[in-house]
Amino acid sequence: MDTLHIAQQARPLPDGFLDALAARFGERCSTAQAVREHHGRDESPYPVMPPDAVVYARDVDEVAWVARHCHDHGIALIPYGAGSSLEGHLLAVQGGVCLDLSGMDRIVAVHAEDFTATVQAGVTRKQLNEALRDTGLFFPIDPGADASLGGMAATRASGTNAVRYGTMRENVMSLKVVTADGRVIETASRARKSSAGYDLTRLFVGSEGTLGIIVEVTVRLYPQPEAVSAAICNFPDLDAAVQSVIEVIQMGVPVARIEFMDAHAVRATNRYSHLSLRESPLLLFEFHGSPASVREQAESVQAIAREHGGQDFQWADRPEDRSRLWTARHNAYFAGLQLRPGCRSSTTDVCVPISRLAECVGETARELDQASFPYTIVGHVGDGNFHVLMLLDPDDPDEWAESERLNQRLVARAIAMQGTCTGEHGVGLHKQAFMRAEHGQDALDVMAALKAALDPRNVLNPGKILPPAA
Amino acid sequence: MDTLHIAQQARPLPDGFLDALAARFGERCSTAQAVREHHGRDESPYPVMPPDAVVYARDVDEVAWVARHCHDHGIALIPYGAGSSLEGHLLAVQGGVCLDLSGMDRIVAVHAEDFTATVQAGVTRKQLNEALRDTGLFFPIDPGADASLGGMAATRASGTNAVRYGTMRENVMSLKVVTADGRVIETASRARKSSAGYDLTRLFVGSEGTLGIIVEVTVRLYPQPEAVSAAICNFPDLDAAVQSVIEVIQMGVPVARIEFMDAHAVRATNRYSHLSLRESPLLLFEFHGSPASVREQAESVQAIAREHGGQDFQWADRPEDRSRLWTARHNAYFAGLQLRPGCRSSTTDVCVPISRLAECVGETARELDQASFPYTIVGHVGDGNFHVLMLLDPDDPDEWAESERLNQRLVARAIAMQGTCTGEHGVGLHKQAFMRAEHGQDALDVMAALKAALDPRNVLNPGKILPPAA
Repeated sequence: MDTLHIAQQARPLPDGFLDALAARFGERCSTAQAVREHHGRDESPYPVMPPDAVVYARDVDEVAWVARHCHDHGIALIPYGAGSSLEGHLLAVQGGVCLDLSGMDRIVAVHAEDFTATVQAGVTRKQLNEALRDTGLFFPIDPGADASLGGMAATRASGTNAVRYGTMRENVMSLKVVTADGRVIETASRARKSSAGYDLTRLFVGSEGTLGIIVEVTVRLYPQPEAVSAAICNFPDLDAAVQSVIEVIQMGVPVARIEFMDAHAVRATNRYSHLSLRESPLLLFEFHGSPASVREQAESVQAIAREHGGQDFQWADRPEDRSRLWTARHNAYFAGLQLRPGCRSSTTDVCVPISRLAECVGETARELDQASFPYTIVGHVGDGNFHVLMLLDPDDPDEWAESERLNQRLVARAIAMQGTCTGEHGVGLHKQAFMRAEHGQDALDVMAALKAALDPRNVLNPGKILPPAA
Repeated sequence: MDTLHIAQQARPLPDGFLDALAARFGERCSTAQAVREHHGRDESPYPVMPPDAVVYARDVDEVAWVARHCHDHGIALIPYGAGSSLEGHLLAVQGGVCLDLSGMDRIVAVHAEDFTATVQAGVTRKQLNEALRDTGLFFPIDPGADASLGGMAATRASGTNAVRYGTMRENVMSLKVVTADGRVIETASRARKSSAGYDLTRLFVGSEGTLGIIVEVTVRLYPQPEAVSAAICNFPDLDAAVQSVIEVIQMGVPVARIEFMDAHAVRATNRYSHLSLRESPLLLFEFHGSPASVREQAESVQAIAREHGGQDFQWADRPEDRSRLWTARHNAYFAGLQLRPGCRSSTTDVCVPISRLAECVGETARELDQASFPYTIVGHVGDGNFHVLMLLDPDDPDEWAESERLNQRLVARAIAMQGTCTGEHGVGLHKQAFMRAEHGQDALDVMAALKAALDPRNVLNPGKILPPAA
């Protein structure tokens, strides 16, 4: 379990540091233990590591003030959205201030005619889609959790719709960012494309709070599809399901979602969501488009599935049926936890080129079948991305050590296949050990130079993304 | 004409600097005046500014060697692809070495099953598509010129297909880059998505040779569409054409290309390409998809065009007809030049949110109608991006000064509309003066910090992108 134990090394707070915060923010600055502990963890398996104080910001000026205060005193500053990250992103490994942005939840502007919306960082994806309901538009990125847009940008999130609509990388048009020393910049205009200088937007997307604090996000929107249809298809085995995915992608069928669940995940979902899905590997599809295009896509996909022994499609055409299906898919994480009452989970994600997906998932499943604990595999397989959820006895260090070994083997396998150690969860603490193997030391040095250039005092979410020097 | 006159300030070459190059590269190092002059210009209106030497590199090791040599001696180094840039990107404002990468023209790998290709920087887009011919795949980015993939990545190029397939920003998956001091890095894996650290790929895309030397490019490929259809539609006036574009985009019709030509451009094209198009503002469309989807798209677009007084579509269904049409469109630049024999051109591009496109194009045309020289407007209007070609008497400084004033007013108009000073041409020298207005000083300072971090001796294409300190 050692890889999951990191000692907190809090920086000493200068005299008067907390008093100044309290004087500026009053009740919106808290040092209560419960509040600090709530902000000193995420959905990762790490033990809590609380910050010294939590500040609830209401506007950009307040964020800039806190940034300057921390920068001037060399104190760590961790931006906090919805707390739904998975790899230890939010742990206060060097103590300091956690800046809770959930109160910055204003929809700043919707430009329906340009297919863009600008929101404050604390707005969640569900809140945004609720606000868009009457415009005929929607924001497609859907990582499962009702994450904040600021957090989704910071982790380069994606999820079930990415195979059709892309990830936060493709869908963030511009950001308002507070720099380490409290300056406020806009990273781009609202033009759909630009060649005017360095791509600051993409630099901050995925930077996990280590290069700047995202306070506003302008995203691309899409027309609500005229027709939507969803279906489930069961397969005799994992390989048949994954091979079908590969062929669908290689045929260029523009599916909106193509999700994989292994038999364990289906079983867990049946129990948790009171469904009666056949408990063999399955794919969930969703098709968006005109009625004719949706029909055409569905026909192409059914033909491919049949060739691989797929059962007949079970359709979910009514919105409420689709909603039930996707809720069940999104609850696969919680459903998995119920497979082993009292367990804690360790979750991981990798992404490989689609041509290697069957091999990568297959080898992984064969290894996990030998493990001493239960697991599930689900994935956004249209992108070559899948997740493993390992269900562990919180008090058994051997199980944790075993899960860490399996995670390491999985990541090594993905990197050897020209893939990545994380498709969408981010690096946080838990994937740092793989950064060198994936990128090489020279590329890591370039990343470290960028970090030093934008945050010379190393105050922004220190200890994340970049591994300690070799 | 003063804004176009920049004095070359060549750095003094240390003793033996050129001798070492000559010893290493033999005949592939040239100081011949003709070779230097050929490499000291691009398609911009600037006078030639030759480098001190031109080196023709054959592989990554050679590029790294030259980078180290220039870095050690603090001499400027300018990567050179096809020479087709438009804003002065290639001018040796501080002298130094021009590194010609056109000989690095090997297709390194085509992974058809993953829809990716890896090519050396000197491979041109036509060469790549030729190599892909039998795979059923194609690379869509098409800036008109047969540019090198390295150059297209470096300028964040796009062109006619971007409305459907995106720009180099979306379609470069990974780069091999030689750093200022001669290290070689890969910016990403071949996974379709990743959250593993800072987005180095997007940092180098659009950096115009100022942050590193792109030596290898991995791009996304797409299935050749099952059905393709193209059509021309004339409109009574500019506004009707542009309003139609806006509605097509807002309807979410997935057109592959939607190009605008004003009446002047049509007239020039008729003469140059021996066509008999009606000489009023027109739109060129191309539709990609299944036969049913192409039909559906075409019907939606025709309905919109009719509402705005569009004439009947003239279809180009045979590949040779489409090819003639797009060749004519791509030759619009050369065709424009023929409108005024003996002229030189100044070209510019801006990009605005689509809701402001009609206003921006309209105001621009009204101003240009008052100019003392001819002009044409063409554009990738589905993205809100358009170009102005101004045809100037090379010996009349008043015309050049007037064209600069009009360019400045156009860019100011685009920025005021939340647009950008360049949609796809890049900054080079000619758009530097607008960087502060577009990004603000604080964002420029962030860009300058990135440049200083990755190129501390300022050897990589110095004097480009970032304006001199205020």
